[in-house]
Amino acid sequence: MSYKSGRHFLQIPGPTNVPDRVLHAMSYPTIDHRGPDFKALGAEVLEGIRPVFGTTNPVIIFPSSGTGAWEAALVNTLSPGDRVLMFETGHFATLWRNMAQRLGFDPELVDSDWRHGVDPAAIEKRLVADTGHQIKAVAVVHNETSTGVTSRIAQIREAIDRANHPALLLVDTISSLGSIRYEHDAWGVDVTVAGSQKGLMLPPGLGFNAVSDKALAAARDAAQPRSYWDWEEMMGPNESGFFPYTPATNLLYGLREAINMLNEEGLDNVFARHDRHAEATRRAVRAWGFDIVCENPEEYSSALTAVLVPDDVDPDALRRLILEDFDMSLGAGLSKLAGRAFRIGHLGDFNDLTLAGTLSGVEMGLQRAGVAYQPGGVQAALDYLAAPEAARAQSRAAR
Amino acid sequence: MSYKSGRHFLQIPGPTNVPDRVLHAMSYPTIDHRGPDFKALGAEVLEGIRPVFGTTNPVIIFPSSGTGAWEAALVNTLSPGDRVLMFETGHFATLWRNMAQRLGFDPELVDSDWRHGVDPAAIEKRLVADTGHQIKAVAVVHNETSTGVTSRIAQIREAIDRANHPALLLVDTISSLGSIRYEHDAWGVDVTVAGSQKGLMLPPGLGFNAVSDKALAAARDAAQPRSYWDWEEMMGPNESGFFPYTPATNLLYGLREAINMLNEEGLDNVFARHDRHAEATRRAVRAWGFDIVCENPEEYSSALTAVLVPDDVDPDALRRLILEDFDMSLGAGLSKLAGRAFRIGHLGDFNDLTLAGTLSGVEMGLQRAGVAYQPGGVQAALDYLAAPEAARAQSRAAR
Amino acid sequence: MSYKSGRHFLQIPGPTNVPDRVLHAMSYPTIDHRGPDFKALGAEVLEGIRPVFGTTNPVIIFPSSGTGAWEAALVNTLSPGDRVLMFETGHFATLWRNMAQRLGFDPELVDSDWRHGVDPAAIEKRLVADTGHQIKAVAVVHNETSTGVTSRIAQIREAIDRANHPALLLVDTISSLGSIRYEHDAWGVDVTVAGSQKGLMLPPGLGFNAVSDKALAAARDAAQPRSYWDWEEMMGPNESGFFPYTPATNLLYGLREAINMLNEEGLDNVFARHDRHAEATRRAVRAWGFDIVCENPEEYSSALTAVLVPDDVDPDALRRLILEDFDMSLGAGLSKLAGRAFRIGHLGDFNDLTLAGTLSGVEMGLQRAGVAYQPGGVQAALDYLAAPEAARAQSRAAR
Amino acid sequence: MSYKSGRHFLQIPGPTNVPDRVLHAMSYPTIDHRGPDFKALGAEVLEGIRPVFGTTNPVIIFPSSGTGAWEAALVNTLSPGDRVLMFETGHFATLWRNMAQRLGFDPELVDSDWRHGVDPAAIEKRLVADTGHQIKAVAVVHNETSTGVTSRIAQIREAIDRANHPALLLVDTISSLGSIRYEHDAWGVDVTVAGSQKGLMLPPGLGFNAVSDKALAAARDAAQPRSYWDWEEMMGPNESGFFPYTPATNLLYGLREAINMLNEEGLDNVFARHDRHAEATRRAVRAWGFDIVCENPEEYSSALTAVLVPDDVDPDALRRLILEDFDMSLGAGLSKLAGRAFRIGHLGDFNDLTLAGTLSGVEMGLQRAGVAYQPGGVQAALDYLAAPEAARAQSRAAR
Repeated sequence: MSYKSGRHFLQIPGPTNVPDRVLHAMSYPTIDHRGPDFKALGAEVLEGIRPVFGTTNPVIIFPSSGTGAWEAALVNTLSPGDRVLMFETGHFATLWRNMAQRLGFDPELVDSDWRHGVDPAAIEKRLVADTGHQIKAVAVVHNETSTGVTSRIAQIREAIDRANHPALLLVDTISSLGSIRYEHDAWGVDVTVAGSQKGLMLPPGLGFNAVSDKALAAARDAAQPRSYWDWEEMMGPNESGFFPYTPATNLLYGLREAINMLNEEGLDNVFARHDRHAEATRRAVRAWGFDIVCENPEEYSSALTAVLVPDDVDPDALRRLILEDFDMSLGAGLSKLAGRAFRIGHLGDFNDLTLAGTLSGVEMGLQRAGVAYQPGGVQAALDYLAAPEAARAQSRAAR
Repeated sequence: MSYKSGRHFLQIPGPTNVPDRVLHAMSYPTIDHRGPDFKALGAEVLEGIRPVFGTTNPVIIFPSSGTGAWEAALVNTLSPGDRVLMFETGHFATLWRNMAQRLGFDPELVDSDWRHGVDPAAIEKRLVADTGHQIKAVAVVHNETSTGVTSRIAQIREAIDRANHPALLLVDTISSLGSIRYEHDAWGVDVTVAGSQKGLMLPPGLGFNAVSDKALAAARDAAQPRSYWDWEEMMGPNESGFFPYTPATNLLYGLREAINMLNEEGLDNVFARHDRHAEATRRAVRAWGFDIVCENPEEYSSALTAVLVPDDVDPDALRRLILEDFDMSLGAGLSKLAGRAFRIGHLGDFNDLTLAGTLSGVEMGLQRAGVAYQPGGVQAALDYLAAPEAARAQSRAAR
Repeated sequence: MSYKSGRHFLQIPGPTNVPDRVLHAMSYPTIDHRGPDFKALGAEVLEGIRPVFGTTNPVIIFPSSGTGAWEAALVNTLSPGDRVLMFETGHFATLWRNMAQRLGFDPELVDSDWRHGVDPAAIEKRLVADTGHQIKAVAVVHNETSTGVTSRIAQIREAIDRANHPALLLVDTISSLGSIRYEHDAWGVDVTVAGSQKGLMLPPGLGFNAVSDKALAAARDAAQPRSYWDWEEMMGPNESGFFPYTPATNLLYGLREAINMLNEEGLDNVFARHDRHAEATRRAVRAWGFDIVCENPEEYSSALTAVLVPDDVDPDALRRLILEDFDMSLGAGLSKLAGRAFRIGHLGDFNDLTLAGTLSGVEMGLQRAGVAYQPGGVQAALDYLAAPEAARAQSRAAR
Repeated sequence: MSYKSGRHFLQIPGPTNVPDRVLHAMSYPTIDHRGPDFKALGAEVLEGIRPVFGTTNPVIIFPSSGTGAWEAALVNTLSPGDRVLMFETGHFATLWRNMAQRLGFDPELVDSDWRHGVDPAAIEKRLVADTGHQIKAVAVVHNETSTGVTSRIAQIREAIDRANHPALLLVDTISSLGSIRYEHDAWGVDVTVAGSQKGLMLPPGLGFNAVSDKALAAARDAAQPRSYWDWEEMMGPNESGFFPYTPATNLLYGLREAINMLNEEGLDNVFARHDRHAEATRRAVRAWGFDIVCENPEEYSSALTAVLVPDDVDPDALRRLILEDFDMSLGAGLSKLAGRAFRIGHLGDFNDLTLAGTLSGVEMGLQRAGVAYQPGGVQAALDYLAAPEAARAQSRAAR
């Protein structure tokens, strides 16, 4: 091991910086997953995670990545060949589509320019046209991690309702849960997909499905073969705090601590903090003279900001220089944005000074890389963060 | 939290006591799973884990429980409706069969008395009868965690070969890998299934598939829909140390440390240690006047010992008393053995004095519970452990 | 590092096995020792430690070993050349005497056979003879770590009172505090000396002085030059939770956790547990046919047992064999007991099964070393520990 | 506990941010301080620490704070009433003087304006005048933590030599060791005093004395009573890796790791990094329009910067606001500088982005507090840090 002084800045849009409290909680000895201590732990996290999703319904927790939770959402609710309406908001929406295809479903992908979220009107129009109700589910990504665009789930729900269509609504919140306001019940979502390694501030290794009653009913009829991901298998033992197969015990220790931390700060404060850091970041980006991938201010992501670079700039070389010279990891432009953008994560266990360090790393990287940019991005962010208005905005949002 | 002085004795047959070195390794900050530091980590564990399976072929690592690795073994190699020959060695073999059924395969279960391992002759006979090669795979459990019986995989391989049958050989080593000698390549196994939480001394959360070339070829034809578990998706990125979706980074830190520890002790020494502790445990059990579930000495498990209790003894009440009075977790009798047996785990990060404590807890529990037993079990174990012969046996085995 | 499977048994009479909760508490980032978070920590430990000493008076906490707390007790209360009455209960009492001499005081050592505690009658007699009140302090060791003999402090207090002598009473509780009942106030002790690494279950690095009002008054007149150890310098800042120089912050985190743990178990239960483990150990030692160093049953130590070995046995070779073969550390015979005894620590974070493992390690070591002994020591201990009477005794003592 | 998102910025001039590697190293179980594993640990740290002091002579390690190491330096080398020449560079030099007085020595304090280091010419002059060699030692602070002024030790040595005076040279490096170039042997220092909690990146709890042969010779004649701090007592057992009384084992684990880290980075690189961060900080301070306490550029401290605030500014209110709003601890102005200055620590485990976050916290605090200042301090620091010249300067210095 070669020592680099100071802490690494992990500013990819997840996995995020895991706080010490979570790491320490995870380092307790593993216990008997059939014993009374585990029963208490299981009951606590299965109950405690619900408000984070904005639901009073069950949340299923898998030992898996978020990708596994995608698969679980599909195989529990659909039958082979079922049509799923999806929306190409970016790289991850596309990967989810590919998964649906490989699993033998029939995804229909509405394409997009990767600079906007899901268009509720387009969904409404497509569902209205689906008079035979061939479409069994609408599957969308809440916060598209590859673009920094947050789709408006409540309005999508309204669009489905206006179309009077019975399709299930499946939503990926992998990079928004615990960072951006989300309401599984109030927004009428049927399956919410999440992972542990972003707003929940845990290492990767847990996948989540929050499920509506309608989703549970659909699961009873869904003919896709399934075993590991089967909700019903989970929900029986879950009622008494247990799991049907060995759970990822130590990550559950971490989850218990993370839920405590979110509650200590207060979810409203957590969301307001992310909003404020995102706005500061956008001010820095604009001051540098760069475009933000997301074009619709109503859809700005509070978890990450994807930055478009001028044509003559290699964003991957820039990221490499920043990693080597300033020990900070940034996210690459993916797929359609490869070579055209980089991404700044500002989610999870984060504060004003760490954001200032992050933006300083970008600005110094731009200078060292010889990129043409306007200095002053960090200054613009500091001006916003220091201003009483921003503080007030945060406290207002938190009410 | 209410303090109980001293350490808990986690003597279920897994998850096992996680050593400090592993817990500490796991508590380092999560890193960018697309960056150079991860690449080095990934390459190291993907390479380093192979000798533990006795293979030079790839080993796939999933963020999942061992149950997920069961599913991966089936869905990568089989097509819907494929017949799989399974053998009812105990509770876990039965669960694997149930999974095969739920996933839409056609498992054929050879039944058994739960006191013996897989009968190679029975396999041979069945395969010889399968002239049309309807059977696509033979799936067996190496060490049946519910009974403490270790099946003879090398002889099963020979039986398949004698039958001249093309079926794949799938083997579950969830509770044997890293504890009981196992040779994926030398024994001609096609898929070896394992998990992190037993002999590998990690918390639960990683599933493994070691794969033969024949298994990889079968995967190319296997028509079962799959995505999360797909080997090919994994093996591409794995070649450069990466994973197709977010891996359980912190468990991989732990895996690196666990591999180091196994190598420091030497796998031969690890196996000899488990053999010795198992023999000491059996001597204690016999001294108490109880039967061991496993009837065939060639099939004694070195990872756990399942103990039959007299008809008038409630083993679960005994386990409860031992948990409450002596802070030790033991394994329950499962399914057919429920109410008739309990199980002592003696695998993983374990030594002579911890075994002595474990057996002392059982013997004191027997006395407190008012069970009719012969005292002297601990003494018998100590006599064996202290004798120079046992030490010599261990060092001989280790050569 | 070379991996030895399982946990090391640290059965010296301190430092003791540090529990995970303490180690984890200690691994939080160091904070500003002048800031509000520290103030809360300081106030909590300075207040919370008092009941552990059985005092409502201040307890001073030094960044030091217990040896430093010895020095602090002397230099705060005495003037150069002052006479101190000491009692040669064993190695550590002798070392404290040597320290007093080196610091320029005038210690008078009453000698002893190292198999008994301080004789209250001898103290009374000496003090009565000291009509000129030359003796300024009586300094005794509560639990002599080198012999496993616990002196009767309450009776020493009565002896001093009967002699109507103004000498201060200084007591070393380094290896008894938090393990053996102790009452600073009720027993009229003036200065109680302690360290962190035994019954408090912490790593070494903190020294303690509990101080009576009489001791504080003496300190105002004491002319010995002092700075680092000066109580008054400490007590000012301590009133608001702070320290005059940088405290050992992370050990204080551990201390807060240790105090919580002692309170969760309840001090009475803690003492009863130590008594019960000590009795079990003595039964094992007697069953093996060996003598216990302590000759007076009223003075048996509940923290450790020193065992005399037959003349032809080399206890250090035995300890070495046990360390190498069974990964357990035992205490050596010191000074007058060198080559004649070894010591078993049974204090701190400890339970029945760990004690069983400890005694098993000794018994197996005796066998491997070829020592002439009677088998059955472990059995005798288990019989005692398992018997309902012992459990009842413990619960009775705990009331 | 109430969760504050993100990491606390501990930017007092020590204790410093303790890196994870050190915290993890410290969280291993305590071991037998008389056993073979400890012997190896002790030998390794006692040897490995020497180059950090720039010495091949012994370094004594105490379980104590740095204040204890001050006391050790005095009591080992001096006799009651001995005169010590000291220099009032700031608060800590004054405290050391007070200690000398309380211990019964005769300190003579040369006063100063707290904005300059020790004046070598003044020392020379005073020593020349001391024809009777009454002065037994010159005791100076290398880096005065209260002012951010670094005295020129090599030139002080030359001044003593020019005066041809036999006084010992005692140097406090508590806030410089491991941060600012220091050469115990080459600079002819007799006793170097240090602590664990600054450049060594450990929690507080270890004190150090590096000792010249001349100091050891002086110790043989020094008549001050001493026991805990006695070098000779230490050096005997140290020769084989042991300590005369229980050492602070877990802090020694941390020390081993910290030495490894310093060696991995390379001491020259460590010093160059501190120099560069200090220069960036000064550029920020000047851009804000504030004065630096240190007036002589040759004496700028690379470990901390003390900033003078305008008369109408309350620096403690500013620090409180920064702590509450931005979760950063800064150092207060002490004693003569109370209410006139605050201090920024930029030492230990630190990097460019953490420095950027630190300076951002100060600048945002100035704005929120309504202090009259010139914006642009952070920008000035970033310009310097990003410039290739600074990088080159660092690499040049590191050669």
